[in-house]
Amino acid sequence: MQPTPPRPRLVASILPADFARLGEECRSLEEAGIDRIQWDVMDGVFVPNLTIGPDVIASVRRVVDVGFEAHLMVVRPEPLLERWVEAGCELVIVHAETCRHLHRTLTAILDLGVRAGVAVNPATPLSAIEHVLDLVDLVLVMTVNPGFGGQAYLSTMESKIAEARALIERTGRPIELEVDGGIGPDTIGGAARAGATTFCTGSALFRRRGAMAAELARLRQLATVREDAA
Amino acid sequence: MQPTPPRPRLVASILPADFARLGEECRSLEEAGIDRIQWDVMDGVFVPNLTIGPDVIASVRRVVDVGFEAHLMVVRPEPLLERWVEAGCELVIVHAETCRHLHRTLTAILDLGVRAGVAVNPATPLSAIEHVLDLVDLVLVMTVNPGFGGQAYLSTMESKIAEARALIERTGRPIELEVDGGIGPDTIGGAARAGATTFCTGSALFRRRGAMAAELARLRQLATVREDAA
Amino acid sequence: MQPTPPRPRLVASILPADFARLGEECRSLEEAGIDRIQWDVMDGVFVPNLTIGPDVIASVRRVVDVGFEAHLMVVRPEPLLERWVEAGCELVIVHAETCRHLHRTLTAILDLGVRAGVAVNPATPLSAIEHVLDLVDLVLVMTVNPGFGGQAYLSTMESKIAEARALIERTGRPIELEVDGGIGPDTIGGAARAGATTFCTGSALFRRRGAMAAELARLRQLATVREDAA
Amino acid sequence: MQPTPPRPRLVASILPADFARLGEECRSLEEAGIDRIQWDVMDGVFVPNLTIGPDVIASVRRVVDVGFEAHLMVVRPEPLLERWVEAGCELVIVHAETCRHLHRTLTAILDLGVRAGVAVNPATPLSAIEHVLDLVDLVLVMTVNPGFGGQAYLSTMESKIAEARALIERTGRPIELEVDGGIGPDTIGGAARAGATTFCTGSALFRRRGAMAAELARLRQLATVREDAA
Amino acid sequence: MQPTPPRPRLVASILPADFARLGEECRSLEEAGIDRIQWDVMDGVFVPNLTIGPDVIASVRRVVDVGFEAHLMVVRPEPLLERWVEAGCELVIVHAETCRHLHRTLTAILDLGVRAGVAVNPATPLSAIEHVLDLVDLVLVMTVNPGFGGQAYLSTMESKIAEARALIERTGRPIELEVDGGIGPDTIGGAARAGATTFCTGSALFRRRGAMAAELARLRQLATVREDAA
Amino acid sequence: MQPTPPRPRLVASILPADFARLGEECRSLEEAGIDRIQWDVMDGVFVPNLTIGPDVIASVRRVVDVGFEAHLMVVRPEPLLERWVEAGCELVIVHAETCRHLHRTLTAILDLGVRAGVAVNPATPLSAIEHVLDLVDLVLVMTVNPGFGGQAYLSTMESKIAEARALIERTGRPIELEVDGGIGPDTIGGAARAGATTFCTGSALFRRRGAMAAELARLRQLATVREDAA
Repeated sequence: MQPTPPRPRLVASILPADFARLGEECRSLEEAGIDRIQWDVMDGVFVPNLTIGPDVIASVRRVVDVGFEAHLMVVRPEPLLERWVEAGCELVIVHAETCRHLHRTLTAILDLGVRAGVAVNPATPLSAIEHVLDLVDLVLVMTVNPGFGGQAYLSTMESKIAEARALIERTGRPIELEVDGGIGPDTIGGAARAGATTFCTGSALFRRRGAMAAELARLRQLATVREDAA
Repeated sequence: MQPTPPRPRLVASILPADFARLGEECRSLEEAGIDRIQWDVMDGVFVPNLTIGPDVIASVRRVVDVGFEAHLMVVRPEPLLERWVEAGCELVIVHAETCRHLHRTLTAILDLGVRAGVAVNPATPLSAIEHVLDLVDLVLVMTVNPGFGGQAYLSTMESKIAEARALIERTGRPIELEVDGGIGPDTIGGAARAGATTFCTGSALFRRRGAMAAELARLRQLATVREDAA
Repeated sequence: MQPTPPRPRLVASILPADFARLGEECRSLEEAGIDRIQWDVMDGVFVPNLTIGPDVIASVRRVVDVGFEAHLMVVRPEPLLERWVEAGCELVIVHAETCRHLHRTLTAILDLGVRAGVAVNPATPLSAIEHVLDLVDLVLVMTVNPGFGGQAYLSTMESKIAEARALIERTGRPIELEVDGGIGPDTIGGAARAGATTFCTGSALFRRRGAMAAELARLRQLATVREDAA
Repeated sequence: MQPTPPRPRLVASILPADFARLGEECRSLEEAGIDRIQWDVMDGVFVPNLTIGPDVIASVRRVVDVGFEAHLMVVRPEPLLERWVEAGCELVIVHAETCRHLHRTLTAILDLGVRAGVAVNPATPLSAIEHVLDLVDLVLVMTVNPGFGGQAYLSTMESKIAEARALIERTGRPIELEVDGGIGPDTIGGAARAGATTFCTGSALFRRRGAMAAELARLRQLATVREDAA
Repeated sequence: MQPTPPRPRLVASILPADFARLGEECRSLEEAGIDRIQWDVMDGVFVPNLTIGPDVIASVRRVVDVGFEAHLMVVRPEPLLERWVEAGCELVIVHAETCRHLHRTLTAILDLGVRAGVAVNPATPLSAIEHVLDLVDLVLVMTVNPGFGGQAYLSTMESKIAEARALIERTGRPIELEVDGGIGPDTIGGAARAGATTFCTGSALFRRRGAMAAELARLRQLATVREDAA
Repeated sequence: MQPTPPRPRLVASILPADFARLGEECRSLEEAGIDRIQWDVMDGVFVPNLTIGPDVIASVRRVVDVGFEAHLMVVRPEPLLERWVEAGCELVIVHAETCRHLHRTLTAILDLGVRAGVAVNPATPLSAIEHVLDLVDLVLVMTVNPGFGGQAYLSTMESKIAEARALIERTGRPIELEVDGGIGPDTIGGAARAGATTFCTGSALFRRRGAMAAELARLRQLATVREDAA
């Protein structure tokens, strides 16, 4: 008999939310059963968009209990690390492309008492993170070029996802493998079959605000890879 | 008989708001009679804080009618200028310290069909803006070092406010003179007497959420400089 | 019977030209039968030299029909991409070392309706481009450190050329493999045997202005790898 | 009797030239009687355009005798200073906005045996250059935001030109006062009356290639300020 | 009767010292009666030289009692401010050219419990510091371009010294006015007469290691401006 | 019979030295039999510490004969390369993370007549240096994040050391493989068994100033890998 495969984790990107009533939006996500909310932090320098900072997150932290992850798309993540933790993020993800001393930055996140993740842009090879896998709790493979919501999934990233899966297996550590960008009903299966365990989705959920729980269930089912089919 | 001095404009900084219910917060400000809302845009590079971007502003634009100004505390304001206008800002303010080609950047704002403002840090001399006064609709003299709400007013800036007032008078153009940082009941009068016409206030208003209109009225009265006393 | 190997492409670097009569120089190259002209764009920041920009290319575009490629040795290729296309380049090559979002930059070039290439400095590993091979029409392996004409060919790059050849074969896509730097009669054969298909040469051609066609023919012959010898 | 005022110097910007036959273009300018040719060096970083570098200038240096000035619109002028001199420029102009150690950079130019100039963007105050006036041979007041040819003259810069004139008079040194941007028949008089002595013009000359000498004569006459009218 | 003018302060630059026996060198300076030692901190980025950091200063702090000032010629003074204080500097001087938020940086120095100074390069106008004079204990007017010892004094800076003197008088605060660069027997008098009160000297002292006290006395005398002569 | 394995080289980091009497400290190291002294050059930009520059090294060069290596932890190593050689370093090591044109920088070091080394941060993959192995005399694998002495050894780097060992063997060239960071009695054996041949140690030596020779001997013994045990 096959062991039950782990339940895929669903994470909601905050980008498509209505920021005029962000508390409510996040409560809806929480009630629909989302596993975590991703705060897409952009600084207008690393990426061509500027989004939200720690004060916004902290305000919402007071009204929901669901887990928060900060996805830092910023040129200099180091000076503000403590702020994301104080704002209530249980997981802080930095981009390999932005850290000259990536090992030190990840250690600094862990020293703050939270989990650490590392993200790679579509063009970035996994060699950029191979020597920090012993530190991280999550690897995030971007499936679009970061900066905006609503972009099309890059299926060419599936070979990288599979390669990341293999690297993670070799460590023997329980590292989550997240994908972010263009994830929806049509694409989540491919990412899952390539080895992703955590799926960040944005527009797919917010498009059907009235039926978020159903949509989540559907995505979760599509992301569930049957052991014998794998 | 003295002519009636112009009514001082009161602008609310968004920094102390509850970002979980930003629409409501802004409606409260609108109902209390605020003249404009200032969106304190910070990128974590020009200043040691990262706040909010165009998508947040656009969400709120749909629920209030009050005027919006974007105060861009970012290292590279140029690439995103159009975004602030699309998000509903009627006035875009850039920092002199961040623009190698300040004249061009201000022209670009005006070409987008909105009003243009220029801000100076506490240490920055007004010579930095003297050759762009023919382009701007507003000069913003920072009365704290930008980055955070709740800092103490630098009364030493009043001589710069007075100097800015004189420069503006010389142009003969109806340029607003805004102050931002530590403005409250104890400080607004000094700034007004030095020549400011527009007052950005944050904590002072939000501290008394139930009595915003009264607080606004009080601030407005304190900011009203009697012609014969001036 | 062996299939005929593809005819090697010869590209002329513009660096050794007489810029006082650039139109004539390019016509000579065209008449001699060059396959393309490479515009070596340098900004004095990414490389220690500054060369030519879009207006120079556009002027010459009006007097020759031969294909143009722009080799962008600049720190920020993104803002000017459209200019190179408007100037008449049918192929735009960016350096992997200069693009934080290489996948996005290459997509932006393709969206302008031209072909896209990616170049790597001598020290840069091919892992830097492995995840964008599905986007590019050309890979350029530098065989000198970019910045100046007339430098000596680095034969140690031949193992990288061979590795690039293998990567390209694996994609099944018709990607050109160009070499640039120190290419002449003594070196072109080695690069060709290692797997290069396109050869950028500068001084070799211009040294013998009166006999460019003959020189080109000789280089082409030296670059032709006999299938049975490969 | 009034002393004869100095003959205004006319300088031709190279921007509107046909770069396919740059030698001829420069010979035409020389024959028309231009005083100097300005090489508008742009790096795509300090300004949003990239133009030409030392090799282009050196090629043309071999075919004309007229004086050359290099106008360096680049973020880091220091490393290449020697190249402009070797290429044949008798005057090298740097932007105040680009030099952290402007006094050192100007000294370095003088140490190369050529004349040194300093340029200021439209928004830049003259205080930026007041402490280097003892070093320079020329002050360049930009009358457009640098980056492109064909922009409209900013008449608001005339007060800055006049202020520069006064600063120069105070030094007692024979410093040229150049204006650059939008200079043509309609604007040259205003700049001259404000105190400019050297006029960089581009489109105005090239628009009438067949009548450059006449156009130059006309501009020179329009730039001649009658002592009694001044 | 005239009041006795204040005794000029003499400060020794550490640059010409023998770094193999820095403790002894500093003891010699202390015994000779120097008022303070200046640690010329250079980072190889703001200036083209790299010198010494906090650990070097801290080692010497343990063997002499004379006052230390840190002259920070570095692009980013903020992150290490605490280190200079911990190393034993009683005065920390930053360059106006390196601080986007100069007012904040100076406040941060004062908050560490030491005195704060601000330095200006030869080309930098005093307008760069006019709005922070209420914060500083010392103004440093560079009389050479910073980076190396042994450069020639720029006497053209004396007008700036005089202007700084006037600005300082206007504040009514006891702000030291230091000069640094090329100060020796031939130049110290000119700087003193222009208004300097503190004189940083390097080679002048170390050239005569055996007679430092006498040399110091001579410099002090030459720097003493007789009230009636002033 | 087994061939005698090469004697491990011991290098002393200068960081823990008493900088007040640096000559004596270095003489002690020399007398204790150290193979080389490493000058840890930090600029406060690439790493969060600023240490020492060429003048400090040159002072000590005059009093000891032991070999010197410069370990350049600086953002822009290129402009000062000649200074380290003039100061007496026989080996100059640059970080792969800081050189856009690593191949050119290493060539420039060799052209100065000294040996060249390349260092990699803990997170940096060896692919960053694979194409320059034909140029270097030493590879330095950081076993802490650079910036400070006294940090704990990262044993996870041993797989990278082993991988570097294999890469080096493949070149057939006598390249030293150095480790730096947390090296002492407890860790040197592990690094040696992984393949390191050169060991930079700081605190371990200086902690026992009176017994440096004994400590060195002990470390050397612990670093000696018996051929049959390997």
